[in-house]
Amino acid sequence: MREDKKILVMNGPNLNLLGEREPGIYGSESLGQINAEIAERALALGFACDFYQSNHEGDLIDKLHHARGEYNAIILNAGAYTHYSYAIRDAIAAIRVPVVEVHLSNIHARDSFRSQSVLAPACMGQICGFGKASYFAALTAVAEIIKD
Amino acid sequence: MREDKKILVMNGPNLNLLGEREPGIYGSESLGQINAEIAERALALGFACDFYQSNHEGDLIDKLHHARGEYNAIILNAGAYTHYSYAIRDAIAAIRVPVVEVHLSNIHARDSFRSQSVLAPACMGQICGFGKASYFAALTAVAEIIKD
Amino acid sequence: MREDKKILVMNGPNLNLLGEREPGIYGSESLGQINAEIAERALALGFACDFYQSNHEGDLIDKLHHARGEYNAIILNAGAYTHYSYAIRDAIAAIRVPVVEVHLSNIHARDSFRSQSVLAPACMGQICGFGKASYFAALTAVAEIIKD
Amino acid sequence: MREDKKILVMNGPNLNLLGEREPGIYGSESLGQINAEIAERALALGFACDFYQSNHEGDLIDKLHHARGEYNAIILNAGAYTHYSYAIRDAIAAIRVPVVEVHLSNIHARDSFRSQSVLAPACMGQICGFGKASYFAALTAVAEIIKD
Amino acid sequence: MREDKKILVMNGPNLNLLGEREPGIYGSESLGQINAEIAERALALGFACDFYQSNHEGDLIDKLHHARGEYNAIILNAGAYTHYSYAIRDAIAAIRVPVVEVHLSNIHARDSFRSQSVLAPACMGQICGFGKASYFAALTAVAEIIKD
Amino acid sequence: MREDKKILVMNGPNLNLLGEREPGIYGSESLGQINAEIAERALALGFACDFYQSNHEGDLIDKLHHARGEYNAIILNAGAYTHYSYAIRDAIAAIRVPVVEVHLSNIHARDSFRSQSVLAPACMGQICGFGKASYFAALTAVAEIIKD
Amino acid sequence: MREDKKILVMNGPNLNLLGEREPGIYGSESLGQINAEIAERALALGFACDFYQSNHEGDLIDKLHHARGEYNAIILNAGAYTHYSYAIRDAIAAIRVPVVEVHLSNIHARDSFRSQSVLAPACMGQICGFGKASYFAALTAVAEIIKD
Amino acid sequence: MREDKKILVMNGPNLNLLGEREPGIYGSESLGQINAEIAERALALGFACDFYQSNHEGDLIDKLHHARGEYNAIILNAGAYTHYSYAIRDAIAAIRVPVVEVHLSNIHARDSFRSQSVLAPACMGQICGFGKASYFAALTAVAEIIKD
Amino acid sequence: MREDKKILVMNGPNLNLLGEREPGIYGSESLGQINAEIAERALALGFACDFYQSNHEGDLIDKLHHARGEYNAIILNAGAYTHYSYAIRDAIAAIRVPVVEVHLSNIHARDSFRSQSVLAPACMGQICGFGKASYFAALTAVAEIIKD
Amino acid sequence: MREDKKILVMNGPNLNLLGEREPGIYGSESLGQINAEIAERALALGFACDFYQSNHEGDLIDKLHHARGEYNAIILNAGAYTHYSYAIRDAIAAIRVPVVEVHLSNIHARDSFRSQSVLAPACMGQICGFGKASYFAALTAVAEIIKD
Amino acid sequence: MREDKKILVMNGPNLNLLGEREPGIYGSESLGQINAEIAERALALGFACDFYQSNHEGDLIDKLHHARGEYNAIILNAGAYTHYSYAIRDAIAAIRVPVVEVHLSNIHARDSFRSQSVLAPACMGQICGFGKASYFAALTAVAEIIKD
Amino acid sequence: MREDKKILVMNGPNLNLLGEREPGIYGSESLGQINAEIAERALALGFACDFYQSNHEGDLIDKLHHARGEYNAIILNAGAYTHYSYAIRDAIAAIRVPVVEVHLSNIHARDSFRSQSVLAPACMGQICGFGKASYFAALTAVAEIIKD
Repeated sequence: MREDKKILVMNGPNLNLLGEREPGIYGSESLGQINAEIAERALALGFACDFYQSNHEGDLIDKLHHARGEYNAIILNAGAYTHYSYAIRDAIAAIRVPVVEVHLSNIHARDSFRSQSVLAPACMGQICGFGKASYFAALTAVAEIIKD
Repeated sequence: MREDKKILVMNGPNLNLLGEREPGIYGSESLGQINAEIAERALALGFACDFYQSNHEGDLIDKLHHARGEYNAIILNAGAYTHYSYAIRDAIAAIRVPVVEVHLSNIHARDSFRSQSVLAPACMGQICGFGKASYFAALTAVAEIIKD
Repeated sequence: MREDKKILVMNGPNLNLLGEREPGIYGSESLGQINAEIAERALALGFACDFYQSNHEGDLIDKLHHARGEYNAIILNAGAYTHYSYAIRDAIAAIRVPVVEVHLSNIHARDSFRSQSVLAPACMGQICGFGKASYFAALTAVAEIIKD
Repeated sequence: MREDKKILVMNGPNLNLLGEREPGIYGSESLGQINAEIAERALALGFACDFYQSNHEGDLIDKLHHARGEYNAIILNAGAYTHYSYAIRDAIAAIRVPVVEVHLSNIHARDSFRSQSVLAPACMGQICGFGKASYFAALTAVAEIIKD
Repeated sequence: MREDKKILVMNGPNLNLLGEREPGIYGSESLGQINAEIAERALALGFACDFYQSNHEGDLIDKLHHARGEYNAIILNAGAYTHYSYAIRDAIAAIRVPVVEVHLSNIHARDSFRSQSVLAPACMGQICGFGKASYFAALTAVAEIIKD
Repeated sequence: MREDKKILVMNGPNLNLLGEREPGIYGSESLGQINAEIAERALALGFACDFYQSNHEGDLIDKLHHARGEYNAIILNAGAYTHYSYAIRDAIAAIRVPVVEVHLSNIHARDSFRSQSVLAPACMGQICGFGKASYFAALTAVAEIIKD
Repeated sequence: MREDKKILVMNGPNLNLLGEREPGIYGSESLGQINAEIAERALALGFACDFYQSNHEGDLIDKLHHARGEYNAIILNAGAYTHYSYAIRDAIAAIRVPVVEVHLSNIHARDSFRSQSVLAPACMGQICGFGKASYFAALTAVAEIIKD
Repeated sequence: MREDKKILVMNGPNLNLLGEREPGIYGSESLGQINAEIAERALALGFACDFYQSNHEGDLIDKLHHARGEYNAIILNAGAYTHYSYAIRDAIAAIRVPVVEVHLSNIHARDSFRSQSVLAPACMGQICGFGKASYFAALTAVAEIIKD
Repeated sequence: MREDKKILVMNGPNLNLLGEREPGIYGSESLGQINAEIAERALALGFACDFYQSNHEGDLIDKLHHARGEYNAIILNAGAYTHYSYAIRDAIAAIRVPVVEVHLSNIHARDSFRSQSVLAPACMGQICGFGKASYFAALTAVAEIIKD
Repeated sequence: MREDKKILVMNGPNLNLLGEREPGIYGSESLGQINAEIAERALALGFACDFYQSNHEGDLIDKLHHARGEYNAIILNAGAYTHYSYAIRDAIAAIRVPVVEVHLSNIHARDSFRSQSVLAPACMGQICGFGKASYFAALTAVAEIIKD
Repeated sequence: MREDKKILVMNGPNLNLLGEREPGIYGSESLGQINAEIAERALALGFACDFYQSNHEGDLIDKLHHARGEYNAIILNAGAYTHYSYAIRDAIAAIRVPVVEVHLSNIHARDSFRSQSVLAPACMGQICGFGKASYFAALTAVAEIIKD
Repeated sequence: MREDKKILVMNGPNLNLLGEREPGIYGSESLGQINAEIAERALALGFACDFYQSNHEGDLIDKLHHARGEYNAIILNAGAYTHYSYAIRDAIAAIRVPVVEVHLSNIHARDSFRSQSVLAPACMGQICGFGKASYFAALTAVAEIIKD
């Protein structure tokens, strides 16, 4: 059974504005609404979910450090930090919790700087382009990763 | 209900060797075994699944063309063609069936040429790094995409 | 007189979808309709025309090889192979039939990867941007090339 | 009928030396001789033609400005300005007369700096590599463009 | 009348050291002194001004978020974050308050890394090189922007 | 007092078409109308203003040379020459009159070639993105520069 | 003894035209003639030889797959696919038969695109520049490789 | 005598995990243990030492500002911020305390992005590759720098 | 004897300001003074000299065209046009008069853009870095070139 | 008969350490042992062989000069000089003895700097990746080259 | 005890001129004076020191080879060879003596070509920017490295 | 009078082969013959001349060091070392004798690697493209440089 598995869903800069920020790209639901749906689906898969959002790079690093021993996996949408925060990358590599990189939009189909993720080499894998369904697909992946 | 939805799972060059080829990177199950699992999970989500594999770029393009009107979505692992086949990209853009790009390995964490997908800008989104679970996560994404 | 001159009009990947594929860029006429117009105009210039289309790089190479001794000139729209098929370029260089490179859209005014033609250095010249009139302009050029 | 259509054929720097300058690349006919042939063919298509040549970037820009309302289309061989004159490009974009970019030689098969045209994104299309027949092919394209 | 217009003047990292830090480049007045002059000139133009400075990227993002609905325009000197903070850029794009990018020095005439602003594409415009007068010029621009 | 200060407002290629040329980017007022507004605002600041426009690079260089000893400052919108005219840059460096670089549009938010100004290292500073208000902001900057 | 060793000599696109295609670069003997010489020399070294040529990338991949368990080594001249076919590279890496990369011409002394082989990292080694003697040298290398 | 000299040892992101994080690269001692050794050796050289660690870029900048007038020299291991924090670089340049850049691993022998330090041009010098001995070597260097 | 040899000394943009413009780089003598010295030395070598200066690219091209048949050699300091005027390069290649490229300063020891001369491939050779003595050295070279 | 043919086998820097240096890459036989095998095989082909090794670039150049008239061909493993010694390249181009470039390891499958040979364009061809068998394969190639 | 440890201090090209060469960058003490200080400090740490200087790349390689079995560590300032001598790099990798790379100046704060060390990946670590104290800091590092 | 001025003419790798090596590029006179002409012309200008040639980079550096106090100027053709020897560049910068860089061929009109001189920034100026007359032109330049 998986009911004692616990995962952390982390969101980085500007994702607190979801629903308000460029809805053509990011959709019209708020982060709270999406998190609620994630929690529900996670439960169906037998996980408990915690949620964390910050616009501060240092906070995200601190939170990743504290995740050691607390969570079985992390789903991380690091927002624009994805493209330059080698410090977050090092934090992911330092802790030994599997991290799934997630993006709402297809980062490979927008501005060229967005197609590079400096976090990717330290993550398990990457899921992008499906709006909130990117998080749902990440749950599916996590379920497989932490099965054993 | 979704039971009349039909999706196509396409695999490109060398994926017929799955289970034999560099198992450290690609796992030890054969493509047939993985396809069987995909079919089962698709069914659970209410879809019928067809499968297609070819090592020939032109065959993959022909198959994409024939998918118009036949399938509600395509899950495509184009193998190494991912990195240079602008012809497959144009085929994806030309048909109006949503395509989910899938990779077994985390293409952003290997040789630098593998981190660029020339197909990505024409696809809905990209899922990579979870082994066969990349396909399962793609099913989750597809279920959302073709819900309406 | 030119009535015994024979030219080959070759089209590469995805051009079989003309009229359906991104009509904003490529127009709404089918390849068959365009070919008919080309044939008619070629006749007016005193040429016979053959037509060939394939999505397969190898087929296009084979066809180029077979064109030796058969045709006085070739009008080639290689689609996306234009941008990476050094194998087609070598085929053009190997046969000694003059080849006119043609594109429907202005490849120098779109995605940056489209502005490079790896075929161009092996061709007589390039015509792009005029929709089906690119082929008609190519006929005018061919008429001059094979005059003597 | 097209007899009241008027087009402008513009030539840029060093094209006044045609016939004398590197005849191996550019042919042995003078600009005057080529213009006469163009005029004759234009007439056959029902257009009147004006001709203009200058070695001065500013003059070419001024002439493009004055072409508004005067001509139905412009055939422009901007010579070496093709490769760096963003000012001419802006002039082309500013006036609303269709411009066909023409080159005697195949600019994609020579020095690498010649394969880039900064004008191309503002033009209808590009024709190059057929010697004087590049202008004739341009007439064919123009005839289609301004048909309606 | 404009007396009810309110603008925010934000300064990023190291600008708290103004007057002390490399005075040859940045001048000898403190940020407080400059802000006082800005406030006075803003008043003359009919605006109220608030001032904010932080060395923390996350604080600047939070402050930008809170500016929505509070200010008619923002004058932002993001210091060195200008050159890499895609997170601040996303924040600017997410809120719908016009932002004027300001720099004391001419960033296009110094180290090459300083000539690129990753914020610029999300801002109204950029003013740099005039010392404290860059802020005064920004006030002039803001007065026009929010006139209507 | 400043009433005896004299400034020159120079505009480069295609700016004579203002109001007609791509009004979505450059606005619908003519250069004459904008110049009149500039003159009026300059007067309010105690300057006399002269205006000059040319599409010719050489003319702009000559004019810059003649500005020595005639003007206290120059406001220069060099149009597309901004991006490649090292000759104008050398002219600016050679005369000892302060030059303020101005652009109507935000050159850092358009085609990538427009984000580089080869003139910038020889100018006092750069103002761009505010339409005609870029010139007004430049007047504010000039007033500070030539105060002493 | 080695008499039961079997090797495969594969040739890619346009090599069927050997003797006709640019004889200045590629020599005047046909592929059949060269193969006969290779077979004879192989026999002298105690190997049996099979030969395969195709212009189709997919065929070459299929053939490589079928070579597993059939051949002790492969001598591969992939023609222009050498420079972009990551799919063939993956096929070479997937099968566990040693592959010797061969070219007739010195690919490091021609067009710059030819100096890069994307196949090389998956091959044992590379031999180029000796015309048909490149194949003979490859036989010498193969004899050493499969000695034990 | 030097006994009244005071130095600050600063450590940036993820260095709080020393001993746990990738011990193959970074060693198995904790930051506390290393700091104790540094303090002891500093004392032997006649310095007092303070220690500071933060994962927050802004905190590191604030701390650098506060170091003015407090410390004779700073030994700084900025972790991954080394590779992109132009804001920390500006802080180093702004304060007039000599800063010695230190890294545990040889940053020039790992991922290519790690070989560039954007901080280096503002620091006295760089020491890397000796594990904790990098800090000890820095003490030797500091002793020389602040001798006079 | 050489007394009937005639050479042209051409100077491009901003060289009319010699003596006034950045004398630290370009020296304090006027162009007139330098030309007088050149004329005297040319006479001693048995040449007549004409001099031409213009800030206009088009004028320089026209003058080069007119030099055919008039001069035995040209000494050309094209100023900043050196770095981008492919039109002047084509003019040099088109006329068959030998051209010696000259610069006052060592263009390979200044801003990086100055180290590239787009004219060089069409010139006989290049002399730079010796102030006015660059012209004198060019006379020595010219004397050898046109000896026979 | 070939018995009067003489070849020179040259080895560059660090190859004197063969057998000791990184045996995983370069094998465990000494240069002397390999040379003995080469000599024996050369004899079998009817050549006499001389051997030369130096770590000094200048010595290798001197030796290449002295090889003129002495040897029918040279087999050269220039070690790391391969990647930057344009001086050795010029020496190869200057003498008219055919040079076969040899490497023990597959230089195209290691650090990226090793895949570029600046010597290659001046050599007949390149053989790499077969350990000592690279030299044996070179003998096969040499036998063909100097046959006539 | 460490008294039987022996280290080699090697200096490359132009370091024999220390004290005379650009003293603003490299200081005013001669290499002999610095070596004397190094020897004294080494003794205090319990090492014997040998010194070697050469301007010849080959000599430095030979000396590195001879250091095997003779020295416990090497301190190497390879001067400008640092930036391109892959041959010295291979020598360092080939011998199994730890090498500490040292530079007098901060190579990361000067011309861009100096910031790349091709030797670094083969060395233990790098110390630069402290003048002669770079060598002293290297002694501290060496003492730790060879402690066990 | 200048009769007591002494200059050194240095030639680098492969220049000892002049007259034999690629005479189409480098001419058919030997270095000795050219040196004799240089000596004669130098005498006419009142200088004594010494000559030095070596293929060894280290020898050239040693010779440059010994030139201090011995010569008033150096004329240096460093052959292919021009393109990569930062060690020779440092030697030129270290001695305080003016160095004139000379090349027989126009290095800016050949292979792209030849157009970059790493020595140039440390030299007075560069003369190239005039065959042996490059040295004569250098004498003219030297005469001016050391006049005072």
